[in-house]
Amino acid sequence: MQRDQLIQCGPAASLAHDYATVRVTSARLAASLTPEDMCVQSMPDASPAKWHLAHTTWFFEAVVLLPHLPGYRAFDERYFYLFNSYYEALGARHPRPERGLLTRPTLLQVLAYRAHVDAAMTRLLQDDLAPALAALIVLGLNHEQQHQELLLTDIKHLFSRSVLLPAYAAHLPAPEQSPAALEWVDFPGGSTEIGHRGTDFAFDNETPRHPVLLAPYQLASRPVSCGEFLEFMADGGYRRPEFWLSDGWAAVSTQAWQAPFYWRLADDGCWRVFTLHGEIELDAAAPVCHLSFYEAAAYAEWANARLPTEFEWEAAAATLAPQGRFADSAWLHPAAAPGGGLQQMYGDVWEWTRSSYDPYPGFRPLAGAVGEYNGKFMVGQIVLRGGSIATPPGHIRATYRNFFPPAARWQFSGLRLARDA
Amino acid sequence: MQRDQLIQCGPAASLAHDYATVRVTSARLAASLTPEDMCVQSMPDASPAKWHLAHTTWFFEAVVLLPHLPGYRAFDERYFYLFNSYYEALGARHPRPERGLLTRPTLLQVLAYRAHVDAAMTRLLQDDLAPALAALIVLGLNHEQQHQELLLTDIKHLFSRSVLLPAYAAHLPAPEQSPAALEWVDFPGGSTEIGHRGTDFAFDNETPRHPVLLAPYQLASRPVSCGEFLEFMADGGYRRPEFWLSDGWAAVSTQAWQAPFYWRLADDGCWRVFTLHGEIELDAAAPVCHLSFYEAAAYAEWANARLPTEFEWEAAAATLAPQGRFADSAWLHPAAAPGGGLQQMYGDVWEWTRSSYDPYPGFRPLAGAVGEYNGKFMVGQIVLRGGSIATPPGHIRATYRNFFPPAARWQFSGLRLARDA
Amino acid sequence: MQRDQLIQCGPAASLAHDYATVRVTSARLAASLTPEDMCVQSMPDASPAKWHLAHTTWFFEAVVLLPHLPGYRAFDERYFYLFNSYYEALGARHPRPERGLLTRPTLLQVLAYRAHVDAAMTRLLQDDLAPALAALIVLGLNHEQQHQELLLTDIKHLFSRSVLLPAYAAHLPAPEQSPAALEWVDFPGGSTEIGHRGTDFAFDNETPRHPVLLAPYQLASRPVSCGEFLEFMADGGYRRPEFWLSDGWAAVSTQAWQAPFYWRLADDGCWRVFTLHGEIELDAAAPVCHLSFYEAAAYAEWANARLPTEFEWEAAAATLAPQGRFADSAWLHPAAAPGGGLQQMYGDVWEWTRSSYDPYPGFRPLAGAVGEYNGKFMVGQIVLRGGSIATPPGHIRATYRNFFPPAARWQFSGLRLARDA
Amino acid sequence: MQRDQLIQCGPAASLAHDYATVRVTSARLAASLTPEDMCVQSMPDASPAKWHLAHTTWFFEAVVLLPHLPGYRAFDERYFYLFNSYYEALGARHPRPERGLLTRPTLLQVLAYRAHVDAAMTRLLQDDLAPALAALIVLGLNHEQQHQELLLTDIKHLFSRSVLLPAYAAHLPAPEQSPAALEWVDFPGGSTEIGHRGTDFAFDNETPRHPVLLAPYQLASRPVSCGEFLEFMADGGYRRPEFWLSDGWAAVSTQAWQAPFYWRLADDGCWRVFTLHGEIELDAAAPVCHLSFYEAAAYAEWANARLPTEFEWEAAAATLAPQGRFADSAWLHPAAAPGGGLQQMYGDVWEWTRSSYDPYPGFRPLAGAVGEYNGKFMVGQIVLRGGSIATPPGHIRATYRNFFPPAARWQFSGLRLARDA
Repeated sequence: MQRDQLIQCGPAASLAHDYATVRVTSARLAASLTPEDMCVQSMPDASPAKWHLAHTTWFFEAVVLLPHLPGYRAFDERYFYLFNSYYEALGARHPRPERGLLTRPTLLQVLAYRAHVDAAMTRLLQDDLAPALAALIVLGLNHEQQHQELLLTDIKHLFSRSVLLPAYAAHLPAPEQSPAALEWVDFPGGSTEIGHRGTDFAFDNETPRHPVLLAPYQLASRPVSCGEFLEFMADGGYRRPEFWLSDGWAAVSTQAWQAPFYWRLADDGCWRVFTLHGEIELDAAAPVCHLSFYEAAAYAEWANARLPTEFEWEAAAATLAPQGRFADSAWLHPAAAPGGGLQQMYGDVWEWTRSSYDPYPGFRPLAGAVGEYNGKFMVGQIVLRGGSIATPPGHIRATYRNFFPPAARWQFSGLRLARDA
Repeated sequence: MQRDQLIQCGPAASLAHDYATVRVTSARLAASLTPEDMCVQSMPDASPAKWHLAHTTWFFEAVVLLPHLPGYRAFDERYFYLFNSYYEALGARHPRPERGLLTRPTLLQVLAYRAHVDAAMTRLLQDDLAPALAALIVLGLNHEQQHQELLLTDIKHLFSRSVLLPAYAAHLPAPEQSPAALEWVDFPGGSTEIGHRGTDFAFDNETPRHPVLLAPYQLASRPVSCGEFLEFMADGGYRRPEFWLSDGWAAVSTQAWQAPFYWRLADDGCWRVFTLHGEIELDAAAPVCHLSFYEAAAYAEWANARLPTEFEWEAAAATLAPQGRFADSAWLHPAAAPGGGLQQMYGDVWEWTRSSYDPYPGFRPLAGAVGEYNGKFMVGQIVLRGGSIATPPGHIRATYRNFFPPAARWQFSGLRLARDA
Repeated sequence: MQRDQLIQCGPAASLAHDYATVRVTSARLAASLTPEDMCVQSMPDASPAKWHLAHTTWFFEAVVLLPHLPGYRAFDERYFYLFNSYYEALGARHPRPERGLLTRPTLLQVLAYRAHVDAAMTRLLQDDLAPALAALIVLGLNHEQQHQELLLTDIKHLFSRSVLLPAYAAHLPAPEQSPAALEWVDFPGGSTEIGHRGTDFAFDNETPRHPVLLAPYQLASRPVSCGEFLEFMADGGYRRPEFWLSDGWAAVSTQAWQAPFYWRLADDGCWRVFTLHGEIELDAAAPVCHLSFYEAAAYAEWANARLPTEFEWEAAAATLAPQGRFADSAWLHPAAAPGGGLQQMYGDVWEWTRSSYDPYPGFRPLAGAVGEYNGKFMVGQIVLRGGSIATPPGHIRATYRNFFPPAARWQFSGLRLARDA
Repeated sequence: MQRDQLIQCGPAASLAHDYATVRVTSARLAASLTPEDMCVQSMPDASPAKWHLAHTTWFFEAVVLLPHLPGYRAFDERYFYLFNSYYEALGARHPRPERGLLTRPTLLQVLAYRAHVDAAMTRLLQDDLAPALAALIVLGLNHEQQHQELLLTDIKHLFSRSVLLPAYAAHLPAPEQSPAALEWVDFPGGSTEIGHRGTDFAFDNETPRHPVLLAPYQLASRPVSCGEFLEFMADGGYRRPEFWLSDGWAAVSTQAWQAPFYWRLADDGCWRVFTLHGEIELDAAAPVCHLSFYEAAAYAEWANARLPTEFEWEAAAATLAPQGRFADSAWLHPAAAPGGGLQQMYGDVWEWTRSSYDPYPGFRPLAGAVGEYNGKFMVGQIVLRGGSIATPPGHIRATYRNFFPPAARWQFSGLRLARDA
């Protein structure tokens, strides 16, 4: 799928095609799961796969069909309550930590709900739509793509809690990886335009475009690898408070962190890593991931470097095409890339930045209920950039701002070093 | 099923028959549930239905087959860890609050596990067994019957958390109920033998039989009804601390109890009750249930009465056959019984007593791992007597001691009043 | 102070003398403390010494003076709220976990409050009082004695939390202790009268006197010593679940218990014990104390014995005078006693029994607000018997029932073994 | 005290004078408190006044005297542990939530500790000091000034928890307040230098000075008043999620916020406010304070405005002398100021900005243990600017960055509106 196809608010035929593509992809991602796998919630931050399938459907029903398709009849009005995530403007909703209690509706009922909404959407998409309505649908597709990534990270978390260590995807042999040496790439800084420009789709949090002053800086040519992170660990990284932010050190102490999430020291003294392909041996060449912001910042401190700001990251990425390894890969785990220059800015691992998730100057949320999409989360979170191996292809761009709380570890989150020039 | 058939350690043929009966009953109880219903854990106290099916199977594997059937091969050794409940002597085990994360093994795998163990048990049961081994099997059957009751109460709890209010059993019309007036039945007290006697099966906590001195007392002819409990509520029962034990009043305050568990005040001002048949209108004639010990004790205080001790209850029940409405009923909810004299001592609702769950004088747990079955829980719990609508027929007797913490409400627990003569 | 002087509801002169004696004792117990020591609350279960001084005064004001002394004017009506402990009938009250926030009223104000109430009580005690009123005052004095013990155990807890390990009392040399060997003393059992008889003071929970049937049994001649408890520890006592009740093992695991409370393994490999005289070397001869019920029960299991029931304990103690080492001792820590036969039933350490704190048959609480004194706590607690080194002399008797939750460790609680004859 | 006197690293005589002035001020702030008031900790975020007095002394001992005064002997080496706040490089320390358990050392001992350290510091300050050492002492004085403000806010919190509502300072009549109307003041934006410049003292977090691009903006001429905040409340401010950040709405819901902290709706329907002078009637003219960031942001949203960024604030403040109402005022509560133009940028209330507390480009912490002073807190916090009525005079400046978590309410924190020009 080409990103261009998705984000253009073009003629109805193209939008209908995009709609079908995204919707089918969600179903395909869940195809290897049992009804039980899709029902259970393994922690409050995660959601069941069935819930993801239903909630993304609810979005189209609540935001597009009910207000905009005359004569549309809801599949089941109780679903308004069950599958709203956090939209206060759209009514009360099922408590987030109890999403796993929803054994009913069953998977079959949720699939029927999808079919019901898809039929109505197809009807709607037959005609040329007003631009504002088309934009809502494109938003709904990007929303669903975000939930596709969450579906993968959430099912990974669930499976990791089992002594059976089930695999989401076939247990392929891990790819041979021969990483390039880490180099420093120079950037001149200066006055730089940041944020989305143009008519392609972007989330509201990427706007408005505005100038920012940057001092000269350097970025590492690739993300930090597992082998490099092992050196940090061997040097007492998790035992030496001098590398850590205060909140990070508290997390290390109270949660007894000793390694990245999903790493396990086996009886043979070797590290093993739980992946979507089951548990594998640690490959030192692969980009390290499943780090909290705290761990990323501590590593950078240990390495006499720092994390880039989101502006430094974006200025560097702006000239690159958003190409890389995404969720359409056969091997659903980060892997090293050969080659020189600035590598892997897109895909493989999200990169924690040293930027809190604050609004851009002049930021205004979208009008209506979808105004709750991004703006109300702009406190207490950290910006990540670049997409990961679990991100749908075509979904990412240089201006894309992902965000998570600094202690979150279950996303494919790694880091790239920066330093002052 | 006749209780006599079950508990006799008779010839192998009879035991094999009992085994088949109990095992089939468990499967039948789960037959109306989806794989998702059977996988989810709705609170730490409850367990998924799939787990019940697997754990009761594990009991036969761990306690009977592995030590006693030469050549027996475990179905999957990892299940030893997954499906042990609390037997320290039998190794580490999966944490109780995470039983709902076990999407794997799937339901089909658990059913295969049951078939595997059943085949081995059938082989074992072909021959005459040493009495000690037969006793272990009978224990395993009684154990499975207890989990049958828990399967019902746990699925009821799960369904109650859904706005869809699913029904476990077909939505029958509720029976017409015309309860008898409450009468007081006299008992003379004196020196009374308490505890199990004879060779029929009983749990170790019912032994040894020993004499107890009782003052003369009276028991109510039937359990307290919902209508009577409504009077308590109307008189400020949940707002007046003078009726409550201190811990009970703390529970009322911190958990905002205002009615028995599963009751809901509908918009029309009428109480509705969630049952295994879905939500129904409150029937004032039915025995009240889903009370904590605290609520039962507060009601008794309000009624100028008290709860009976477990000895008073047993002395009264000793002469009655253990007949009543059990889990083979069509209507799986307590219902009023007509007639005079001492009614409904067995079935319908468990009756909270005013007895802490302490060991009888001279109590000794069973030898081996099964010694953990009862004895180690003898602190902080309250004795209930008589069985409920969810108890398997044939499972109950006058000396049977059930026990739960005083705040537990999700069992079919009601009360019968007592007073000094 | 002779116990007889205290408990008789005799002529006013004697009661006035008792009143003065008890009230002065409270003040004397606090004399060595600073205002800061007396203000702070070290855990929710404990109360500040200043609060104890004020609350015992409030009891006389609220229960005796306001209803019974015409023209009495309260010292400060806001104290009704501040210093009520748990009497629902006497109005709202300051939250228990926040007693340590009461920097105001200051210590001086609380002492003035005591003087104000003492003056009014002295006026009241000049005349002959109605028996019911005299009984309330005697109850108030026994209440204050209970808080004298708590003042000692609570200040001990506070001081134990400091790296400075302050001593409450002068750092005397520990007494030489040469304990007698443990012997078993036989008791015939049979029908035994239990509970208080006569006109002397007793709490309502000691009534009514009633017969109980006991099987023949044996009691150890003295409490378990620290040296014996060290053997249990050396044998893996805190690491072997087979000795523990289920709730006890959970406490061991989650709270990482490895020794009795207040024990500390010093760098030299020797155990040291925090006492009211500061930290001292462990004396193996002294009775072990600061055990939870769980630890006491686990020790007994390990020792192939059991805890006595409260009835067995009382039947054995009934013929002994309540003499022993109490809070008027110079050495405020349990110590071994030489000699044979049944020793140290009173004083030194409270003895956990194997009896839940249930009401006696026919139990009725006192009328009025003081009915909340005991009855409403009759669930979830375990009976202890015999008094401790922190119990005021004259306060204890054979029928006295103390009670604490099974996990409590900050009282002077030890154990005496029992076994079937 | 003139700010200029304090911050210059001038000749020893001047520094000695500054030292004496700051140290005496701390003692004077505590003079009206009892030993009990100074010992208790009312919540984990707050510290006892005695602890503040000891900790600020420990700073000079640990950072200045022990490394730099030959022959210095510590007052009590155990204090290193007791009074370290959060400096990992300086060893283990007493747990923060247990600062209130330190009844020992007593207040007298802490005052002796202060005298001991002051004597040694006086000796040290007799000679000319190396600039780096003088800078550490100036840092220690600024550190102590910050704790002076905390001493006030912490004692206010403690007193607010008492039904007696004690007053820290004499109960003066509240000043007459006639506020100016709110006006909008224009600022041109453009490239602006942000951060500290020159040789005067500043914290490391104010550096390095660097240029920032600002769009044209407006600031309100004065902080938001209580009367204006009442309008927000009357318009459903605390009940309408559309004004709130997601985390803020969660705080409103779970903590039941209905008004600013320390406000109480009296029985007469009027709001009353707890202040350092006791409880007073709400003055609608006074600046609103004790708001969380969430409340400040919600108010701004309701008012169709926003919070300024810390850069906008600093650019506006840079030309103003840091004058206003500080902790040397007689009336220790925010009050309205008459007059036009940009008012009350300094003093009265800290102003929440819309800036997360991130490091400035090129930020480097101080070398050594004092490097932990600011840098390690740069995540999860929000910047406040301008000082408050509790800030020591001479302590604030345009570049000063204060920071607290977004839910904190016990500081004197208010807001000033901003909007795009």
